[in-house]
Amino acid sequence: MSQLDVQRQSETAFVPTARTTVKRVPQRANYDREMVYSILDEGLVCHIGFVIEGLPSVIPTAYGRIDDVLYIHGSPASRMLRAVQGGVDVCITVTLIDGLVLARSAFHHSLNYRSVVIYGQAKLVSDTAEKNEALRAFTEHVVPGRWVDVRPPSRTELAGTLVLALPLVEVSAKVRTGPPIDDEADQQLPVWAGVIPLQTVAAPPIDDPLLDSGLTAPDYVLSYSRP
Amino acid sequence: MSQLDVQRQSETAFVPTARTTVKRVPQRANYDREMVYSILDEGLVCHIGFVIEGLPSVIPTAYGRIDDVLYIHGSPASRMLRAVQGGVDVCITVTLIDGLVLARSAFHHSLNYRSVVIYGQAKLVSDTAEKNEALRAFTEHVVPGRWVDVRPPSRTELAGTLVLALPLVEVSAKVRTGPPIDDEADQQLPVWAGVIPLQTVAAPPIDDPLLDSGLTAPDYVLSYSRP
Repeated sequence: MSQLDVQRQSETAFVPTARTTVKRVPQRANYDREMVYSILDEGLVCHIGFVIEGLPSVIPTAYGRIDDVLYIHGSPASRMLRAVQGGVDVCITVTLIDGLVLARSAFHHSLNYRSVVIYGQAKLVSDTAEKNEALRAFTEHVVPGRWVDVRPPSRTELAGTLVLALPLVEVSAKVRTGPPIDDEADQQLPVWAGVIPLQTVAAPPIDDPLLDSGLTAPDYVLSYSRP
Repeated sequence: MSQLDVQRQSETAFVPTARTTVKRVPQRANYDREMVYSILDEGLVCHIGFVIEGLPSVIPTAYGRIDDVLYIHGSPASRMLRAVQGGVDVCITVTLIDGLVLARSAFHHSLNYRSVVIYGQAKLVSDTAEKNEALRAFTEHVVPGRWVDVRPPSRTELAGTLVLALPLVEVSAKVRTGPPIDDEADQQLPVWAGVIPLQTVAAPPIDDPLLDSGLTAPDYVLSYSRP
C-alpha cells in the first residue's frame, strides 16, 4: 500500500501491527473503527494487564472512551505508576459474550463473542479539565444521561482520583458470530446443535434505603439497557 | 497464627500472599474457597495475562475448573509456551458484573461485582486422560449436562489441543454488594440513588441451519441459565 492508502485506511480502520495481527483464527480479526468503538461502548469493565517485576497482573476496572482515547481509573495500575514515571505499558481487553455455540462434537463447542485488545502506554492525566471530562465519560459510559443529574466532582475529589489515558492506536477486535461449524462427518449425528444467545439485561432498580421517599427513578434508569 | 491454624484456615480459605492482599478497598477482599469457586463456576470467560518480551498481553478465553485446578485452552499463551519451557507466569482474572451503583455524586458511582484473581505458573497438560478431563470440564462449565450428548474428542483432536493447568493456590476474590455510599453531606440532594441489578439471561435457542428437522433442543438448553 502507498502511504496515502495507509492514511485513507486508517480513517476507517486501525492499522494492524505485529502484536495486533490476529494469528489464531485470523478470519475473526476486525480492525474496523466503528466495530471497535461499538464493543468498547457496550462493555462495562475492561481487564487491564501490566507487568510488575517481570510478572503479569490483570485487574478489572471501569472505563470511558472519548474519541480515540480510553480513560481508566488509575488505581489498578497505581503500584506500577509509582515505579514507572512517564507511562505504563498496558494491555487493555474488553470482551462481550453473545452466545454459547453448541456443536455435535465436544471439540467444536465455542462462544460467540466480540472482544477488543489495545496495547500501548497509559499516561497519567494531570490536567484537571481533562480529568473532569474523563470522569464524565466514566459515568456516561455506564449510565448515559446520568452526569447532568449528579453532584459533579469537587476539586478535592478530582485531585484524589488517578486517571490514566490510553490512546487507541494499536488496536484489534475479534468477533465470532453464527452457528457451530461441525466436521462434515459429524453432521448426521443425532445431537441437537445450535446457539444459545446471551444478553445482559437490567432488573427493576432498587432504591437506596436512604432515598427520600419523594424521589422516583428517572427514565434512563427505568428503561436501562446496554447500547 | 501457628502453622496448624494456617493449615486449618487453608481448608476453607485461600491464604493471602503479598500479591493477593487486596490493598484498594480491602474490606471487599474475600479469600473464602466457596466464594472463589462460585465466581469461577458462574463466569464464562477468564482474562489471562502473560508477559512477552517484558510487555503485558491480556486475552479472553474459555476455562473449566476441576477441584483446585483451573484449565484453559493453551492457545492464547502459545506464543509464550514456545519461548518458556516448563511453565508460564500468568495472572487469570474472572469478573462478574452484578449491578450498577448510582450515587448522588459522580464520585461515588460504582459497580457491584464479584471477581477472582489467580497468580501462578500455568503448566502444559501432556497426559491424555487429564487433557480429556479438562475438555470435559470446559464443556460442562459452559453447558452442564452437555458432555454425555456429544461426540467425545478424538485422539487427533486431543493431540492438537493445548491445555494449560493453573493450580488455585495464590487466589483472591473481591466483592462489592449493596447500595451506594454517598457522603453524608450529599444524602439530602434531590437525586435518585440506588442500584440497577444486571443479569445474564439466555434467549430462546437458535437451531443450527443444518440441524436434522427431527431433533429438538434438550432441557439443559431450553431452560439454560448460569449457576
